[in-house]
Amino acid sequence: MEFWFSELHTPNFTIKVKVKRTLEVRKTPYQELAVLETLDFGRMLVLDGIIQTTEADEFIYHEMITHVPMFSHPSPETVLVIGAGDGGVVREVLRHPSVRKVDHVEIDEAVTEAARRWLPTISAALDDPRVTQHFTDGVEWVRRAARTRGGVYDVILVDSTDPLGPAVGLFGPVFYGNCRKALRPGGVLTVQSESPWFTRRAMLRSFHGIRRAFPLARLYTAHVPTYSTFTWSFTIGTDGVDPLTAAVPDPLPFETRYYTPALHRAAFVLPAFVERLVAAPEPDDLKAELDAEVASEKGV
Amino acid sequence: MEFWFSELHTPNFTIKVKVKRTLEVRKTPYQELAVLETLDFGRMLVLDGIIQTTEADEFIYHEMITHVPMFSHPSPETVLVIGAGDGGVVREVLRHPSVRKVDHVEIDEAVTEAARRWLPTISAALDDPRVTQHFTDGVEWVRRAARTRGGVYDVILVDSTDPLGPAVGLFGPVFYGNCRKALRPGGVLTVQSESPWFTRRAMLRSFHGIRRAFPLARLYTAHVPTYSTFTWSFTIGTDGVDPLTAAVPDPLPFETRYYTPALHRAAFVLPAFVERLVAAPEPDDLKAELDAEVASEKGV
Repeated sequence: MEFWFSELHTPNFTIKVKVKRTLEVRKTPYQELAVLETLDFGRMLVLDGIIQTTEADEFIYHEMITHVPMFSHPSPETVLVIGAGDGGVVREVLRHPSVRKVDHVEIDEAVTEAARRWLPTISAALDDPRVTQHFTDGVEWVRRAARTRGGVYDVILVDSTDPLGPAVGLFGPVFYGNCRKALRPGGVLTVQSESPWFTRRAMLRSFHGIRRAFPLARLYTAHVPTYSTFTWSFTIGTDGVDPLTAAVPDPLPFETRYYTPALHRAAFVLPAFVERLVAAPEPDDLKAELDAEVASEKGV
Repeated sequence: MEFWFSELHTPNFTIKVKVKRTLEVRKTPYQELAVLETLDFGRMLVLDGIIQTTEADEFIYHEMITHVPMFSHPSPETVLVIGAGDGGVVREVLRHPSVRKVDHVEIDEAVTEAARRWLPTISAALDDPRVTQHFTDGVEWVRRAARTRGGVYDVILVDSTDPLGPAVGLFGPVFYGNCRKALRPGGVLTVQSESPWFTRRAMLRSFHGIRRAFPLARLYTAHVPTYSTFTWSFTIGTDGVDPLTAAVPDPLPFETRYYTPALHRAAFVLPAFVERLVAAPEPDDLKAELDAEVASEKGV
């Protein structure tokens, strides 16, 4: 018998991964979770039918969402990680010796439980004494942190699922505005911002939301085999610090498999059509949607 | 009824594209050819079960295999295009105003016939008076051209199928050696050199073959949704001209959708693990294979 996991990028385009065995499948209070043992990618974490991470290629996503912002800050000490229940982002954050405290906010404890059980190479760093785990809503966490005068964090990293289900609030302009307030001066926000090919609208929502909230917003990309078949995007927001002129140590203080000092800059060089997408003004319907969200928050 | 086309990247990893209708399916003397009308990617050319090009994303591959080498040469006049039966590479070559003559060598006339019938936006440039089409073996064509003292071409572009079936000779060190001899001083060779993730061995075969034949060999990448789900590689070989220091006109003399002057350089910045792969010495088994091919040619 052959067992294949299928993920639809669109209703008309699918990737299929052959599965050796099912390690865990359960409904959590927030989503459907599965951990599958695959032939080509090792163990694979799936949430609501979407591949989140695999043992074989997780290093690409985790290095790129983490090291680009972390090396864009001269000395990040206090870091907030939202989502990323598998622990991969926290693992990469802790490789930076300046880090003293990591708040890890994941809404769904079941994701972390599954990662601890089945994905130890990804989740192990969660036991580091610098890490405090909070199983709660990231949107609310940031709303509270935003009230602290002068900010709390040097770096905020948002490793969310797609903007459906539990993660939808993490793609909104109100959330990004609160991230700005929760950052100290010189602070850096980075979020996964979807695919420039298959989920262009979600990418622009993230990018424009961050551009509204931060003086400087830039998109960069990395290529993850088990994500979309096009390149994946990340958006970085800062109060003026430009990641392109960051003093990235070369050689790096630790070994990487994807990120390099040269790639830190090259990842911001976008294909022409993607550059045009993010350089264009907000599309009218997106503008109306973002305006409405900001207005409704102000009314609360 | 739903009709899906499946392509296996490995026996355990597949992409599937939903098909509206089949425009043409035939066996040619060299391979099985299909042109399918898809929902997400427009019309799609398939050879021996492998997606070659689609209307939606062909611009990425065709711009990147063409403009990087063409702008690495100060004024390319005479160009040899091998494979690329659909005409996409020739179309991009002809956008460079210095070009006076293009030899287009495709082994399988049926591919060009199908492209003329079903993919006019890709194939139309084949009627340009600067183009001469030769339906013959590219390996033999280059072997003859290599005998011309001083070389014949400023740029040679090899847009082959994968190194199986009719294209296998286009991945060999003897072929690359003859390309070198067929180039004029300052000439540039570029080939598609497979995926650094799924077909790593084929990539290294191409890269090391070119490195044996040329004083300078460099790998660069681009991301094509309907190719491998990781980035795709190209290898450029020159007699010393470095594509990284080429004087790429900025702004470009024509509009592009993927290639930009900044991307010309950024595309050469490789992920750490790919950089290590190409920086390492030839693996022993590959070395033995390449040595044997060179020796058998010398014996002929």
